[in-house]
Amino acid sequence: MNYKVLDVNSVIEYLLTIKAIETFFGSDTIKAQEIGDGNLNYVYKVSSEQDPEKALIAKQAVPYLRCVGEEFPLSRERMTFEIRALDKFYKIFPNFIPKVQHSSEEMSLVVMEYLGNHIIMREGLINGVKYTKFSEHISTYMSATLFYTSSLALSSSNKRELMDKFNGNTELCKLTEDLVFSFPFMEHETNDNENVTSNPNAKKLFEDFEFKEKVLDLKYKFMTQSDALLHGDLHTGSIMINKDETYVIDPEFAFVGPFGFDVGALLANLVNNYIHHCVVTKDEEFKEWLLQTIKEVLDKFSEKFLQYWRELKDSALCVSGYLDDRTSEVYKKRFVKNIIRDSVGFAGCKMARRVYGVAGVAEIRGIQDVTLRGEAEELALKIAREFVMNYDKINTSDEILEIIKNAR
Amino acid sequence: MNYKVLDVNSVIEYLLTIKAIETFFGSDTIKAQEIGDGNLNYVYKVSSEQDPEKALIAKQAVPYLRCVGEEFPLSRERMTFEIRALDKFYKIFPNFIPKVQHSSEEMSLVVMEYLGNHIIMREGLINGVKYTKFSEHISTYMSATLFYTSSLALSSSNKRELMDKFNGNTELCKLTEDLVFSFPFMEHETNDNENVTSNPNAKKLFEDFEFKEKVLDLKYKFMTQSDALLHGDLHTGSIMINKDETYVIDPEFAFVGPFGFDVGALLANLVNNYIHHCVVTKDEEFKEWLLQTIKEVLDKFSEKFLQYWRELKDSALCVSGYLDDRTSEVYKKRFVKNIIRDSVGFAGCKMARRVYGVAGVAEIRGIQDVTLRGEAEELALKIAREFVMNYDKINTSDEILEIIKNAR
Repeated sequence: MNYKVLDVNSVIEYLLTIKAIETFFGSDTIKAQEIGDGNLNYVYKVSSEQDPEKALIAKQAVPYLRCVGEEFPLSRERMTFEIRALDKFYKIFPNFIPKVQHSSEEMSLVVMEYLGNHIIMREGLINGVKYTKFSEHISTYMSATLFYTSSLALSSSNKRELMDKFNGNTELCKLTEDLVFSFPFMEHETNDNENVTSNPNAKKLFEDFEFKEKVLDLKYKFMTQSDALLHGDLHTGSIMINKDETYVIDPEFAFVGPFGFDVGALLANLVNNYIHHCVVTKDEEFKEWLLQTIKEVLDKFSEKFLQYWRELKDSALCVSGYLDDRTSEVYKKRFVKNIIRDSVGFAGCKMARRVYGVAGVAEIRGIQDVTLRGEAEELALKIAREFVMNYDKINTSDEILEIIKNAR
Repeated sequence: MNYKVLDVNSVIEYLLTIKAIETFFGSDTIKAQEIGDGNLNYVYKVSSEQDPEKALIAKQAVPYLRCVGEEFPLSRERMTFEIRALDKFYKIFPNFIPKVQHSSEEMSLVVMEYLGNHIIMREGLINGVKYTKFSEHISTYMSATLFYTSSLALSSSNKRELMDKFNGNTELCKLTEDLVFSFPFMEHETNDNENVTSNPNAKKLFEDFEFKEKVLDLKYKFMTQSDALLHGDLHTGSIMINKDETYVIDPEFAFVGPFGFDVGALLANLVNNYIHHCVVTKDEEFKEWLLQTIKEVLDKFSEKFLQYWRELKDSALCVSGYLDDRTSEVYKKRFVKNIIRDSVGFAGCKMARRVYGVAGVAEIRGIQDVTLRGEAEELALKIAREFVMNYDKINTSDEILEIIKNAR
């Protein structure tokens, strides 16, 4: 079918022509309802009249940024990469990816499992909900998706095939280059300029060339380091969660990039939440749980990544018989430590960009009280700076916790 | 035209159907002669009967390794990448690239300028010929091709387009991964095993896990660092030269990889030649010229690369207004120093692989006297080890010369 933008009526017509959808709903009558949380895309909940629990999500990309309108063009091919990434990640570890019932690159459309019993993790964390299984889940997700799409696991040709499939995601990579690594650290029209103009902390940041030079190293890594298939935007708003289950959604920024970028995105968002609780709720117990969770996420990620690697006897990188066991183990541990280091660097960039850049996070920009918001911003910039200036010297997750705790 | 393997007769028939070739030779009668220096491909000299000076080279890839035969299949698409690289490099700096008159990806064929007044540089250097303009030429070639195909110069989307064009060169990348970074440092059937078995130095190398761990870092960089479009096999056998001109040929290994790999390949081959003269001719004056040339190549490369960069006010990496001039200059100098460091590391791998690996160099493996050859091998391994163990601490080209000179 040739591309056309669907609405609440035509989405039903379209879906009724798809075998898999027909099978899913059987003889039920189906209805669609637009649900409004997509900044970029149109999202519909499609459900059975007879059994409202039986539901799917239909998500379609339009050739512009939905929340702004047609005057902000953004190629709808971003959905192509979301479809491919959902498929790839599902094949690696289905537990953490919504099951796709139908997808069409031509229509820039994906139809998948409706996660009715889960909420956006960011909201849960703001409300102080502890997700005790999260560190276990997300460390498995990250280590498995990153390891099994890297040159440590894939053959040389399979890796290049994977790169081919995602190399075209230029527009969203460019958004990250600009909006994460550049504009938030200089005078720019895209910034939250109401807050920036005549703000001495913004001025200080924009003139912190020591910091910005290190950011440039990390930006260069983002642009040129082809480690593994990334989610590309792994913040707590891309995670649907409840006490028992964790789902990672919205991988439209997926591309083959540096290992540390996904881990760093998550780390940044957990720390931003910690800052929120420092400044707003002052809930010491929840803060303690957050710190513990950060430590567990990082340590379990390292352990599992190493474990997947140890299970592989031969790889494109290290052919069987090249190294002895002892050196091999030393090499792998050093390699994984470097992933964590880069993650800390990327986390610093991601935290700092949320302060004055175009897309703030609810935990900080959402604070109504101006004084408290200023306090949170300062804290975020302080931790971000420590992360960026010292990431390449970090040795343990405890050192990361120390930076976070000592920032006040 | 559908692909078919051409011979000395059908190559003429084919070329007569090509407008550009007809224009080149006018009404002359043309003849073809096979010239035998291709390991991988068929190479014909096509010239005018009336004016033998008027000549072109026709080079066709066959779907196997020509020097071994059909039992060693190697996809003929390697010529696709050679054609694309010749075109790309010629557009950047035509002075150092043979002019292409006709090319066909379908036919895996390229027809280009015949370099009748030039010889393979390796032969000239073995015979002690000093090429006084070489450092000037090759430093321009390397700095221009690497800089202008990198994320430092290209927009984000042009860079990804470039990657798309070369990402398919999987087979030759895999050859390098195996034959440069892995097999020459372990027991393997592809090695020069006559020389390896019961050779204590080979045994020592194969068990030097400290060295091999560092080689693995460099191999990983080769596999995943997408800096710029590389020649991919820039040794002195890929350079045609005379006193006044320098041409870089045979870029079939071209792909988007780490900056230091081309510079390192050249460095390794100049040092191998130095070792030859240490052991065989003992020509102190020529050795001194070689050392001076190595220094000039590296220093001029750095200067020119920096100069191209300074001329660019805005880039995908560093948008205008992001850094102040002072920090920008510090950043760029540090960046270029890191290219030189990586080059030294890659040079070490490339030197060491030539000792016992599948493809030796004339300067060392070609030494008839077993004792002298052993001496040359030992020297090569010693310098290679110093390079690989210390590359990430190198600060100046003089330190590189010290390693080379002190190896005896």
